[in-house]
Amino acid sequence: MHENPLTRRRFTAGTGTAAAVALTGAASAALARTAASAAPVSAAPAAARSTADWQTCLKVARALLVLDEDDKPLVPRYEKILLHDGLPKTRSAPKKVLVIGAGPAGMAAAALLRRAGHRVTVIEANGNRAGGRIKTFRTGGHEKAKQPFADPKQYAEAGAMRIPGSHPLVIGLIDRFGIKRRPFHYVDVDPQGKPLHRTWIRVNGIRARRADYARNPLAINRSFGVPAKYEKVPAADIVRKALDPVRDEYSVLQPDGTRVNKPMPELLEGWARVLQRFGDWSMYRFLTEYAKLDARTIDLIGTLENMTSRLPLSFLHSFISASLISPGTAFYELDGGTAVLADALLDEVRDLVRFDRRVTRIETHEDGDRVRVDTVSEGRDGKVVRERFTGDAAIVTVPFSGLRHIQISPQLSYGKRRAVNEVHYDSATKVLLEFSRRWWEMSEDDWRRELDAIEPGLYDKYRKGQVPDDGRLLGEHPSVPRGYLSEAQRTHYAANAWVSRDQPEAADVIGGGSVTDNPNRFMFNPSHPVPGSDGGVVLASYSWADDARRWDSYDDEARYALALRGMQEVYGKRLEVFFTGVGRTQSWQRDPYAYGEASVLLPGQHTEIFPDMRTPEGPLHFAGCHTSIKPAWIEGALESAVRTALEVHGG
Amino acid sequence: MHENPLTRRRFTAGTGTAAAVALTGAASAALARTAASAAPVSAAPAAARSTADWQTCLKVARALLVLDEDDKPLVPRYEKILLHDGLPKTRSAPKKVLVIGAGPAGMAAAALLRRAGHRVTVIEANGNRAGGRIKTFRTGGHEKAKQPFADPKQYAEAGAMRIPGSHPLVIGLIDRFGIKRRPFHYVDVDPQGKPLHRTWIRVNGIRARRADYARNPLAINRSFGVPAKYEKVPAADIVRKALDPVRDEYSVLQPDGTRVNKPMPELLEGWARVLQRFGDWSMYRFLTEYAKLDARTIDLIGTLENMTSRLPLSFLHSFISASLISPGTAFYELDGGTAVLADALLDEVRDLVRFDRRVTRIETHEDGDRVRVDTVSEGRDGKVVRERFTGDAAIVTVPFSGLRHIQISPQLSYGKRRAVNEVHYDSATKVLLEFSRRWWEMSEDDWRRELDAIEPGLYDKYRKGQVPDDGRLLGEHPSVPRGYLSEAQRTHYAANAWVSRDQPEAADVIGGGSVTDNPNRFMFNPSHPVPGSDGGVVLASYSWADDARRWDSYDDEARYALALRGMQEVYGKRLEVFFTGVGRTQSWQRDPYAYGEASVLLPGQHTEIFPDMRTPEGPLHFAGCHTSIKPAWIEGALESAVRTALEVHGG
Repeated sequence: MHENPLTRRRFTAGTGTAAAVALTGAASAALARTAASAAPVSAAPAAARSTADWQTCLKVARALLVLDEDDKPLVPRYEKILLHDGLPKTRSAPKKVLVIGAGPAGMAAAALLRRAGHRVTVIEANGNRAGGRIKTFRTGGHEKAKQPFADPKQYAEAGAMRIPGSHPLVIGLIDRFGIKRRPFHYVDVDPQGKPLHRTWIRVNGIRARRADYARNPLAINRSFGVPAKYEKVPAADIVRKALDPVRDEYSVLQPDGTRVNKPMPELLEGWARVLQRFGDWSMYRFLTEYAKLDARTIDLIGTLENMTSRLPLSFLHSFISASLISPGTAFYELDGGTAVLADALLDEVRDLVRFDRRVTRIETHEDGDRVRVDTVSEGRDGKVVRERFTGDAAIVTVPFSGLRHIQISPQLSYGKRRAVNEVHYDSATKVLLEFSRRWWEMSEDDWRRELDAIEPGLYDKYRKGQVPDDGRLLGEHPSVPRGYLSEAQRTHYAANAWVSRDQPEAADVIGGGSVTDNPNRFMFNPSHPVPGSDGGVVLASYSWADDARRWDSYDDEARYALALRGMQEVYGKRLEVFFTGVGRTQSWQRDPYAYGEASVLLPGQHTEIFPDMRTPEGPLHFAGCHTSIKPAWIEGALESAVRTALEVHGG
Repeated sequence: MHENPLTRRRFTAGTGTAAAVALTGAASAALARTAASAAPVSAAPAAARSTADWQTCLKVARALLVLDEDDKPLVPRYEKILLHDGLPKTRSAPKKVLVIGAGPAGMAAAALLRRAGHRVTVIEANGNRAGGRIKTFRTGGHEKAKQPFADPKQYAEAGAMRIPGSHPLVIGLIDRFGIKRRPFHYVDVDPQGKPLHRTWIRVNGIRARRADYARNPLAINRSFGVPAKYEKVPAADIVRKALDPVRDEYSVLQPDGTRVNKPMPELLEGWARVLQRFGDWSMYRFLTEYAKLDARTIDLIGTLENMTSRLPLSFLHSFISASLISPGTAFYELDGGTAVLADALLDEVRDLVRFDRRVTRIETHEDGDRVRVDTVSEGRDGKVVRERFTGDAAIVTVPFSGLRHIQISPQLSYGKRRAVNEVHYDSATKVLLEFSRRWWEMSEDDWRRELDAIEPGLYDKYRKGQVPDDGRLLGEHPSVPRGYLSEAQRTHYAANAWVSRDQPEAADVIGGGSVTDNPNRFMFNPSHPVPGSDGGVVLASYSWADDARRWDSYDDEARYALALRGMQEVYGKRLEVFFTGVGRTQSWQRDPYAYGEASVLLPGQHTEIFPDMRTPEGPLHFAGCHTSIKPAWIEGALESAVRTALEVHGG
């Protein structure tokens, strides 16, 4: 079908040299090449380009694979502790432990330590919500809206929304709590659950269903102006082929297209080589310089496979993420929203949590109360309160972007300070819109019936682009509850509505999502109905990095009209009749309790900075997903909870 | 004193090869080297690594040097038009022109076009302020606070604050308007205006005056753990030496240490080589791979010379900025604030400006009204209004980060769309604090007198760290007007105050600023007193990129206590007695009219994307500093104003 532009080869030989030349000059290139090829895998490839030494790369690879210092897997032990037996018995005396932050890491660590006999206090800045970046907009939930949507039964995720089946700690915890989980349909399905791939790709002014694109990518690929050799290759295949040689370092491609990890120690050493080779590369550099892709092809894969906004960030982050979320990974969501998991964690430690206590200062001492933590309340209810907490040890789960503004004395080690100052936190922004009907599940016949029920002939008017653009049809379906749209809002929506005569055919899918080059970028339909509700809340826009920053300049209220427009461009103008007028949005960068989406590292930070992020500093221990190599995932937070609980507990 | 770690050489020969190897394999490295060395400067160096071709590099170099297509300087012509003669006479009929955005670019273009006989309307989203990123917090100014500070005479800059003397269009315009300008003291001075370099460097828990650091950098450099060869080299010198070989491409180092540009065409070709060689490099890559600096030295220069937060961004942006702001550049500020310039620009076009009209859609047509611009008001005063404007042509000055959310039909060219979607906009955040006395100008004797006036012996108590930390001394100097600090705020400030027994000696300077590794990063004292006021507003924190993002998560009100703490760490706790309780802050990333500080490009964007940013699209013309290679500078906006006025006017 096409030339494979990427030679599959051991990159330590083939391209390690190129970088080596940058260090040593062309004269020694041939020599460097020989050295690299001959290097045994267990030692540092002599000529590989990196700012990091081999031991550091091994250390980071162990963190990535969750191995102990003897290269033994830690997860089985963590599972045993977290899900079954609790912390091991020790002879050490019970300690007074402060846990800063009531997210999953803090709450899980607190529960383990209390169960082991320690006296624990959890200090949380938020006045009325635990869970951190697990946050469900739901009736009776907290922050701002008591009832976030017009239909009180509706809920939607501001944060964590899909849980990979390949994450044993979080899946184990969900099951231990007896929380009902069900498939998160990353790909749209039919009523029998069969994948359809009928959702849309809408880019450069043209539109195709995903299945059609996979079969014939020509029109879309040409709209990016890719070279002839890529015109017929689906974007996902181009990405896979670009990453294959790197994956070959630690895994083996099977005849069926899946990959199997190499056995230890090859697995560890393979990852260490990847870290050493590409630790200081951006994804942009990888795609241009290693994969030798041209700007147009990078734009194609960046747009469709969500790489564009993170091109300047670490190659490793996106590579590791892509390795985790393979096409075969099953994802789950929780009945009632992900906050049900936060509820269950909170139930175990509720009496230990002090809400509305923002930490302003942490002091450590050689003896006596080894940790003193000063806090202040927000004073939303009036008087502002300062309170000091003391303990023998503390587990700090605050994202480093927030820790930056906490005075710590005496100052932390150089390495930790640098991490606090510099570790990059990414932006991620969601805009959610509520509809009175799940129109994406409707067939073209359903559309005709429902539109003509508003006004005979309306279906055809929408098809012909003959509807008025003054907003009068917004929320006009009889199923839309009245009272959520003011005249002012109606005018704003109308002013921003997508103007086009283009009305694609019905989506007619369950779950899944579309991709577009408009500002919305990624859209997800709910995978399951909410019992008792005919409507649904759509994730109208999910974006990261620079894509998210394009939203973050707008106030919450200004985003909904823009998000509706973006959906209309992809699905057609007619969906407006079901809009209830209610939206919710979450900008993690602007969130004063989260300070960013997650630690998505910059080139070089995995080897220069990450190793210092999790090392204890006297009585201070550091947890949270940023101390794992699974930033943004609950699994990483739980790994860190068990690790730090063990550090504090001993044994 | 130390080895020069950087060989000064023609990089197209020495390092162009390294990159070429990445493309072509080690086998051809020797050949590539020869080719590069032998390449005539007027042709593409055959082996230089870049994703861009030579013609593109020349094109971008022309934009950088503001040359026309025949390599003739445009600035003299622009000066003549903007400052003296207006647009040239043509035979073409007057046009109806829409200008979108009442920043400096839009207002200057509108004034030129009106003067030439065209009918102009300026469409501005902001309801009550022109000027764009020229924004002065001042009494009678607009947005939120009518009187921003406790002292109604005080004012301070949210945006543009220093105007380089090397920018002829903006300096010429200021002088033409008869606006009084005076030196902006980048470096602190004595009352006679002599540079002192007495402000502080406060990093890694230690502190030195800048002059002392320049004389003996050992302690500070060691606190970063730099290698022995750099221990005695001031950070600025390390940066300069790292950049010198690149500057050698287009300029010549004089015996007195200054640089003189090479004559044309060497100047142009030199810059084109820089673009081709480093167009797709980040600053991080340049420092590690080309300058061969280690992580600790990069941390030193990054912290002191403000490079850290922009390490992942384009090498070229920081390099061009550093080339512009040489140590010898004189800066100016305007009497009454930079907004006085915006006022003067607005005075020329006030009758043309339609405020409170946010553009939601732009349509272009082949004939008739070639441009139709739909707008909506914010409805702050009640009813939301939609209004359509029509014209023969439009000048669009909206930052591309904002243009992203405007529907344009038919869609723009591929290159322009990609620019709108992807051009990186940086964050920049300022936090300003008002004091009732200019304590940074005080001597130690002044401090004793003023503190003991509050309470006898207080001076010594501060020196010994014996003052209470409950906030009771905040704003306690008799000069502080009462009523600006609630009890709740007092508690918040106390909770966040810097706790330390460390009280450095008085700053005792006029103007200038300090640098720190705490979140404040860069602090600037006002260069001149405000007539009739004993107080002053300090720029307590000025930060960019990731440094700014650490602030952007906080609401405005939460930032002041944190900024005061950061100042206390650098200057000592005692400054709290003069704090009026009033602050102002500007996060350009969160600003819904600016959508970011400025277009600070990512690696590769100068050559892949920039050339498409300024090309007209039918009747649409694109202005604003982002269409120049002086993003964030008024000069770039004015260049674009004249360029687009000429495009629309013809001739």
